[in-house]
Amino acid sequence: MKKIAVYNGTFDPVTNGHLDIIERAAKIFDVLYVTIAIHPTKVGLFSIEKRKELLKEATAHLDNVIVDSTDELSMDYVKKVNGKVLIRGLRSTTDFDYELQYAQSNQYLNDTIETMYLMTKPSHSFISSSVVKEMASYHKELTGLVPPCVEEALKEKYTK
Amino acid sequence: MKKIAVYNGTFDPVTNGHLDIIERAAKIFDVLYVTIAIHPTKVGLFSIEKRKELLKEATAHLDNVIVDSTDELSMDYVKKVNGKVLIRGLRSTTDFDYELQYAQSNQYLNDTIETMYLMTKPSHSFISSSVVKEMASYHKELTGLVPPCVEEALKEKYTK
Amino acid sequence: MKKIAVYNGTFDPVTNGHLDIIERAAKIFDVLYVTIAIHPTKVGLFSIEKRKELLKEATAHLDNVIVDSTDELSMDYVKKVNGKVLIRGLRSTTDFDYELQYAQSNQYLNDTIETMYLMTKPSHSFISSSVVKEMASYHKELTGLVPPCVEEALKEKYTK
Amino acid sequence: MKKIAVYNGTFDPVTNGHLDIIERAAKIFDVLYVTIAIHPTKVGLFSIEKRKELLKEATAHLDNVIVDSTDELSMDYVKKVNGKVLIRGLRSTTDFDYELQYAQSNQYLNDTIETMYLMTKPSHSFISSSVVKEMASYHKELTGLVPPCVEEALKEKYTK
Amino acid sequence: MKKIAVYNGTFDPVTNGHLDIIERAAKIFDVLYVTIAIHPTKVGLFSIEKRKELLKEATAHLDNVIVDSTDELSMDYVKKVNGKVLIRGLRSTTDFDYELQYAQSNQYLNDTIETMYLMTKPSHSFISSSVVKEMASYHKELTGLVPPCVEEALKEKYTK
Amino acid sequence: MKKIAVYNGTFDPVTNGHLDIIERAAKIFDVLYVTIAIHPTKVGLFSIEKRKELLKEATAHLDNVIVDSTDELSMDYVKKVNGKVLIRGLRSTTDFDYELQYAQSNQYLNDTIETMYLMTKPSHSFISSSVVKEMASYHKELTGLVPPCVEEALKEKYTK
Repeated sequence: MKKIAVYNGTFDPVTNGHLDIIERAAKIFDVLYVTIAIHPTKVGLFSIEKRKELLKEATAHLDNVIVDSTDELSMDYVKKVNGKVLIRGLRSTTDFDYELQYAQSNQYLNDTIETMYLMTKPSHSFISSSVVKEMASYHKELTGLVPPCVEEALKEKYTK
Repeated sequence: MKKIAVYNGTFDPVTNGHLDIIERAAKIFDVLYVTIAIHPTKVGLFSIEKRKELLKEATAHLDNVIVDSTDELSMDYVKKVNGKVLIRGLRSTTDFDYELQYAQSNQYLNDTIETMYLMTKPSHSFISSSVVKEMASYHKELTGLVPPCVEEALKEKYTK
Repeated sequence: MKKIAVYNGTFDPVTNGHLDIIERAAKIFDVLYVTIAIHPTKVGLFSIEKRKELLKEATAHLDNVIVDSTDELSMDYVKKVNGKVLIRGLRSTTDFDYELQYAQSNQYLNDTIETMYLMTKPSHSFISSSVVKEMASYHKELTGLVPPCVEEALKEKYTK
Repeated sequence: MKKIAVYNGTFDPVTNGHLDIIERAAKIFDVLYVTIAIHPTKVGLFSIEKRKELLKEATAHLDNVIVDSTDELSMDYVKKVNGKVLIRGLRSTTDFDYELQYAQSNQYLNDTIETMYLMTKPSHSFISSSVVKEMASYHKELTGLVPPCVEEALKEKYTK
Repeated sequence: MKKIAVYNGTFDPVTNGHLDIIERAAKIFDVLYVTIAIHPTKVGLFSIEKRKELLKEATAHLDNVIVDSTDELSMDYVKKVNGKVLIRGLRSTTDFDYELQYAQSNQYLNDTIETMYLMTKPSHSFISSSVVKEMASYHKELTGLVPPCVEEALKEKYTK
Repeated sequence: MKKIAVYNGTFDPVTNGHLDIIERAAKIFDVLYVTIAIHPTKVGLFSIEKRKELLKEATAHLDNVIVDSTDELSMDYVKKVNGKVLIRGLRSTTDFDYELQYAQSNQYLNDTIETMYLMTKPSHSFISSSVVKEMASYHKELTGLVPPCVEEALKEKYTK
């Protein structure tokens, strides 16, 4: 039986920090869903469609990655795609505090699905979607922080 | 190809906190090695042989768990058994700080093996081998904290 | 002289995490005020009146608990009811950081009143009003997370 | 019925950080036991008798404080003296992590006794018995860090 | 060559916590720019002009301090004034987590400029612009928390 | 007047993590003392003389660095060499907690000297003398973790 995992997030936009987790998780599981969590009340910089497009381009080299989006609770979504594991990245103790509660609340909701964590690579630990968007708004180079397609998309956004 | 993972620790002795991680990891991977890390200079309460015996009894209900011990570096051991993943439990921010460095140093040593984390169940978060040993030394009940065979072994140790 | 303590919060709505702190504090002090802090600019899910009603129902079994609300600074309110102690719950290191500053700023304002902390029970540590509201918005069961009257009130809110 | 609390520690030696907690707790409870925890295997700088003597002198102005020592588990000791509360001080997130586990393990052992926390005063947050001993070993002034009797006792220790 | 450093922040308004960092940094470097970071989308309590005026009055006794404001990224601003160092204060682990990412992202943007930290004085560690504004809104005394000119400005704001 | 700073530590042995802090601090101050703190009761892997030799070789390219050792308290040593600043590196929240107390205790001892912090580079954040020694004891490559002279010295130690 195939081992299916899900990596979810806002991906507004995907960074090299996310991509590092995706590449590492894709080596461990047979199928990895990379899924954009839709928050009905939050408006992002990029539309869900654009975020998907960027994720697809950034993960084109990974055969077993499926890009998707959902407005369901994570546990419901993982169950729907027959996943057993939700993958998350951990960068800092503030992350940890939030994630501890998140994992425990996931376990309350469905204890047949596990929330598992990968530590962010040291060189990627300061990269986040918001840091990257702030830098882009000041027209800074983003080399090494985001995939090339995201760098281009951000440039376009902030020169308009 | 079988997905092989390793969960290592001192297990002096195994607690229900460890057992919870073992049971959850055993559901995710095809084979789980539960491996006692031998530190040549540290003398434990229980001998390596006794710790193995207790681990075997406590995991007897899990078909895909193999109990072992090693004096190698974790990354070398995981490689030797053809594992792709080292499993660790996370309880607190102090744990997190240590584990972040541990995972990054593992990645430096062998970046084809991933260190993955499961958050400890809330009801088990205060349980550790040292807490359990201290309670046992005061002849306290350990129900719910350790497997029955460990409770017995601890009683024996501290009534001698 | 009676020992009077105050436990304040937003209680939007009260959870079993809050209730655990209330029950434990009510055993230590002669009178425990459970007081809703009114933030003029924040609109909650429930009105102050509804929150009070739910708190009263949830604490009906506790003789020495008085449910109240206030728009005063905590220290002024504790003084007004002749309290000596403000009770707070602690769940995580992020909580701790905030509470350390809060306790020190309370001490600056009135050093005859003490801010005291109880650690949240492990099984309740992931429960918060926001987690509970999010789950309710997805029509999830809340058994064990909130008192029955709150579960009902939340159901009503999210089926409307 | 009198409200009895216990504040335990190693007190090797008592500092102004401890004394601040003692004075604040003594205002809240009717009787406060200040109790030296004896660890059979740890040798301190001062003997248990000397630590008691210094604690008694430092708390002579507090009518409702009783200085004692014990080799029992905290929960057993609090029960023996008919206490309902164990008081602890909190200075830092590292403290917090340890104390969270300690409080939860106390609750496992006896859930009729509560472990409660007071935040250390900001100006005392760097003071600890070890910092004070290190400074004394370099013959530094300790004014404001320890009670006068402790300053004298430390001077004597380190000039011998 | 003169050693030039920059200390930036929102300073809405400047507190004694900020002033302590300013005084200590001004002793280490030849010139210290104290610079208000302008966030175009955030409206503060005080206008940029008023904040500057208060900062100038509060630092009038420091010869080598220059008060300024900027809407540039910190690294660009430090470079523009020929600074080598950006000074920041650290109070808590939550601060630390944020600042670690901030310093690393600064280093990515310009690795010839260093971000350096001073620990907040213990007696100032709970003081922040928001705590001070909240207290002022309840007409509390702010003695010791802010410079006299700020105390006056806050009183004026909240009696209008 | 020359700006003199001190960076102290055990340096048993110096790592690339230390070297990064040394290089960055040497660019900010006119003279940087890199000083081995001698703890009379702790025996290191390398003798003080050997550690000095390795530090000198590793910092040979830095004109304004002076390698030294001391058994004095840091504040006394900084004063002796006419320094104004003690430099420290920060890697993690556990570091932070310790350093906050250390800086505050330094300020108590001598408030004319400042303790300043540089955040460790992300790629160096897992490197420590103990990690490096453990890896060396398993005959692992240390490329990128320590200066070449230290790599050699460690190889020699562990093949004897």
